[in-house]
Amino acid sequence: MPATDALAGPSVTLRGIDSFHVAGSVRTLAGLPVEQRVLAQGAAARPVDPNGDHMTGQMYCQAYRLVQPRHPFPVLLWHGGGMTGTNWETTPDGRPGWLWRFLQAGYDVVVSDAVERGRSSWSKYPEIYASEPIFRTLDEAWDMFRLGPAKGYATDAAARTAFPEQQFPLPYFDQFAKQWVPRWAGHEAITSAAYDALIERIGPCIVVGHSQGGGFAMLAAQRQPARVQAVVALEPSGAPAFDTGLTTPRPPHLTVWGDTIRSHPVWQRYHATVDAFGSALRATGARSDVLDLPLEGIHGNSHFLMMDRNSDAIFERVAGWLEHHATDHTTDHTTDRTTDQAPTSPP
Amino acid sequence: MPATDALAGPSVTLRGIDSFHVAGSVRTLAGLPVEQRVLAQGAAARPVDPNGDHMTGQMYCQAYRLVQPRHPFPVLLWHGGGMTGTNWETTPDGRPGWLWRFLQAGYDVVVSDAVERGRSSWSKYPEIYASEPIFRTLDEAWDMFRLGPAKGYATDAAARTAFPEQQFPLPYFDQFAKQWVPRWAGHEAITSAAYDALIERIGPCIVVGHSQGGGFAMLAAQRQPARVQAVVALEPSGAPAFDTGLTTPRPPHLTVWGDTIRSHPVWQRYHATVDAFGSALRATGARSDVLDLPLEGIHGNSHFLMMDRNSDAIFERVAGWLEHHATDHTTDHTTDRTTDQAPTSPP
Repeated sequence: MPATDALAGPSVTLRGIDSFHVAGSVRTLAGLPVEQRVLAQGAAARPVDPNGDHMTGQMYCQAYRLVQPRHPFPVLLWHGGGMTGTNWETTPDGRPGWLWRFLQAGYDVVVSDAVERGRSSWSKYPEIYASEPIFRTLDEAWDMFRLGPAKGYATDAAARTAFPEQQFPLPYFDQFAKQWVPRWAGHEAITSAAYDALIERIGPCIVVGHSQGGGFAMLAAQRQPARVQAVVALEPSGAPAFDTGLTTPRPPHLTVWGDTIRSHPVWQRYHATVDAFGSALRATGARSDVLDLPLEGIHGNSHFLMMDRNSDAIFERVAGWLEHHATDHTTDHTTDRTTDQAPTSPP
Repeated sequence: MPATDALAGPSVTLRGIDSFHVAGSVRTLAGLPVEQRVLAQGAAARPVDPNGDHMTGQMYCQAYRLVQPRHPFPVLLWHGGGMTGTNWETTPDGRPGWLWRFLQAGYDVVVSDAVERGRSSWSKYPEIYASEPIFRTLDEAWDMFRLGPAKGYATDAAARTAFPEQQFPLPYFDQFAKQWVPRWAGHEAITSAAYDALIERIGPCIVVGHSQGGGFAMLAAQRQPARVQAVVALEPSGAPAFDTGLTTPRPPHLTVWGDTIRSHPVWQRYHATVDAFGSALRATGARSDVLDLPLEGIHGNSHFLMMDRNSDAIFERVAGWLEHHATDHTTDHTTDRTTDQAPTSPP
């Protein structure tokens, strides 16, 4: 096969790649009409009966297991809304993604596709899902992913307006759009239940979540604080309600933010929600660090930090933080927790 | 992470895992109503505008590249209808799938999700896709995958009726159902175009296709006979129209069939179509071998040979055939082609 840029760096020796689905249950449909459909090339039409048992709510996970992991806890990579685990693989411009970087750094890695997305499948509506899905346009993404100003997108790549110093690999934006999948609103409960099932299966782990996946990571750390050893939330698009009744020590959290949030009303709101959650965490004595890239002099990062041209440099920052803080906080949490570290930035 | 049965056998050293999407183009929608939707946990509703540019027709591919491949041509694994590349990963009962077996055997491997399925995404209907999709029930699959007689399925696993000697790991049928995804009828042209684009990107390769993917593999070998070095069609559910005008030598083909086809009218028809294609292949001097498992004394295989309890034994047969026949047929094809080997079985 032709080589690609994605092959840079040391090789990785695996004892296995295994995939599985967690959660999911059977729903029975009845009373729907039977259709006649041609399903195979050159075959005659045959009846297709939608009545019967349908699997729903399951989540796909792919586990990469090293022969010699250098860290005790595997990393779970949780993508954001309208995406799949592909987000963590090769970047749109063909460089190694964070999946490969975590493997090279000596972590076992589990990549999942959230319920209803990618290889997790999705269910018939309105019979099983209540509503129709949402399809993201390239136009909207240009704005929401903070590549450029609202209305800065044009079908013709030469006519697009991007923010100065933009770190996203702009010539590959259309290639990136190939990763996007439809999504539903209002599926937080089934999605979170599947993440809970994944953590129950894996045991002690680190969760790295992006965007919507960052909010789910914070929620998972509240629901299973003894299993989640650390949370890295990359540009989380929200935070769960803070559970004030938790008695188990909470794992350390790191939140990472890109550029141009201050000029984007929707992102300002998301940031404020997450910031409030971080303050509540710190009030309990838990570690909640913030890596605000522009405040550190790193400019131009989009919402998709792990695909941006400086994705390797950001990975090194995150990996360094994990090296120091992703220890077993349930048996020795006092050392890390006594530092009541303030966030480095307001939104 | 807890170990699984899927970790049996030698480790695999990779120089990279890279993923990419081939094919795909932008379609612009206009004139649709704007909706108000809540998209993130705890966030306010915001407008969702479906008008604008949508990506459609792309196909997801994941390439596993060995540090030291032992074979010159990578293996492309193409799943069947209503499935994704997950079919080739861990079996539903937790054993290593053919992806891992091909890597252990020294082949680079590319797994893809067909257009509209899994990580390839799907498009809004009726605006981009003409019709609504088909959702497979567990009831229908029990029959069409030949696990047991029609109407042999029941929601209660203890009440199901299976064929004698069934090789499918029956206690994991519901787990297998978690792999299934919706599919559309009538998408042969866009699917085939994406497979063409994949082969153009990869270059000389072996294609292993299952069910609907087996038919696409035969079609790809007609469309790019100099690049496709060998075709393995596992229980193909059809065959393309035979291209009588082809002047390039055709690659060798192997077709593999499981049990109980003779008692299933739909599978009898599919088998007859494929058998006619194989006869036409042989009439041109090309190799077209048939491995009919029950005729060789191997009984009870379902439609999903690569997940059945004897999947490793069938893999060894296929790998052995490839070892002998997946040579560069465009430069030295006379040796293999002069044997006008008859199929070992009629349907």
